[in-house]
Amino acid sequence: MKTALGIDIGGTKIYAALINGSGEICSEVEKYSTPKTAKEIVEKLKEIISKYEGEVEFSAISTAGGVNRENTKVICSTANLPEGYPNTDFSSLSNKPVFVENDANCAAWAEYKTGSAKGMENSITLTLGTGVGGGIIVDGRLLKGKSGTAGEMHFKMSLDKKRRCTCGAYDCFEIYASGNGLRLSGIDVTGNKDITTYDIIEGVDKGDEKMLRAYNIWQNHIIAGLCGLADIFDPDCIVLSGSMGKFCDIEYMEKLVNEEIVTMPTKILHASSGNYAGMIGAVLLGFDKLKLD
Amino acid sequence: MKTALGIDIGGTKIYAALINGSGEICSEVEKYSTPKTAKEIVEKLKEIISKYEGEVEFSAISTAGGVNRENTKVICSTANLPEGYPNTDFSSLSNKPVFVENDANCAAWAEYKTGSAKGMENSITLTLGTGVGGGIIVDGRLLKGKSGTAGEMHFKMSLDKKRRCTCGAYDCFEIYASGNGLRLSGIDVTGNKDITTYDIIEGVDKGDEKMLRAYNIWQNHIIAGLCGLADIFDPDCIVLSGSMGKFCDIEYMEKLVNEEIVTMPTKILHASSGNYAGMIGAVLLGFDKLKLD
Repeated sequence: MKTALGIDIGGTKIYAALINGSGEICSEVEKYSTPKTAKEIVEKLKEIISKYEGEVEFSAISTAGGVNRENTKVICSTANLPEGYPNTDFSSLSNKPVFVENDANCAAWAEYKTGSAKGMENSITLTLGTGVGGGIIVDGRLLKGKSGTAGEMHFKMSLDKKRRCTCGAYDCFEIYASGNGLRLSGIDVTGNKDITTYDIIEGVDKGDEKMLRAYNIWQNHIIAGLCGLADIFDPDCIVLSGSMGKFCDIEYMEKLVNEEIVTMPTKILHASSGNYAGMIGAVLLGFDKLKLD
Repeated sequence: MKTALGIDIGGTKIYAALINGSGEICSEVEKYSTPKTAKEIVEKLKEIISKYEGEVEFSAISTAGGVNRENTKVICSTANLPEGYPNTDFSSLSNKPVFVENDANCAAWAEYKTGSAKGMENSITLTLGTGVGGGIIVDGRLLKGKSGTAGEMHFKMSLDKKRRCTCGAYDCFEIYASGNGLRLSGIDVTGNKDITTYDIIEGVDKGDEKMLRAYNIWQNHIIAGLCGLADIFDPDCIVLSGSMGKFCDIEYMEKLVNEEIVTMPTKILHASSGNYAGMIGAVLLGFDKLKLD
């Protein structure tokens, strides 16, 4: 079976491994610290790619930022990407094809092809971490939109300018459903501006009443967003992925979502593709796009 | 060119006409008052269909309610449909095929195939009337979801239970962006609970300050919703249709939406398919689905 080089560029770590057309990792997973500048990231990618180039059909990169429909470059971003990063021409990094896709889209494709949403042709995966990403599958195809950047989870939860989002606007889903959102709910409940997301998670574990209240507020905010997405997409399932996804009480969420929506009942699921969902999804999307097997 | 019978079942009127595969109306448009009960509606449809059955390839019906993927029946509804209506087996109304689709989906398809969104493979049409409907085109295909009922515009605009929506939940986009939403904004501004949507529109025409304030609030609510839809779908355009769509200041809306979204700029457009968009869209979708030309 043919293999590709999968690379996941995260905020702190870069992962790389050989992955086959079934999404199986066929080598050791290499791990590097993510350099601080776009130039250094490009140098690191060149180094990784040159090492494996002879053995693979193509390289597939999972990255933050909105990626164009041609899967060649990042064209917009809400996150704090290094300066110059959006103009990087990824195709110049290799003599073989280089396929690039947004990390949440890659995670969604991994869940659809090999994970919790396997076989569900209409599914949404939300990556709940410091921020929130979204990847949407419609009739077995990745939703890309006119320019490739669909799936941004910046719909509003309030009209009252309560919380400023990282994108500059107010009250986006991201600033409620993220780890940062949990932290802000913790501040709302305790009045303590120094509280961290970690403090709250630890407090919930210990049964602390205020921390539980913050956690419940956070969950109910996520539920409100999921209801909207369910009514818009009528999906088979919504998968909650990312570092914060694992803290969601999916049975409670599924119950409340299905009590409220006007479309047909949906499933709320934990992700199952793990830390390597990004590079696995990137490679599987690459195989589909490049028509290789 | 082959023709089909297009039928639009509205809340107050039923329209019917012969329509060809290019979406052109080829006969007089017949108009009837919509009967009050599901049984009477079915009798009326039988009467209309039997009249034209010999001349057409199939009948296509545009209706309120969520329609299944097979386009044979209404399976869910937020509107006040007559009792029993969702169980109607439309295929039994004719010896030839009967194609059924949600009215907002039909309007969206008409705008995409022959109207303002012509040739735009990623577009959203919102029907702003007493309520709000949505039809979404993704890569040239109608977004139906797992069961066929995607496109419901019940995502939340607030977490504070400010306005009760017709669906029973609170603060859905529909209860802000509809004519009813404008009325509620008028009540908020004036304190007059008897004010009507029509009073406000008339007041805006006359330059009444309070009515203008209500109108601006209503428009800003719509803009907030459009930002979310634009970030989720990265569409070529969002078309504002329905009786309230014509009152939208689309240039102002487009400017504010594009200042706020994190994806690529989109267009906000008035609809151009007119009152017969429902039956035209139903027929064009039917030709596509039934593979006739």
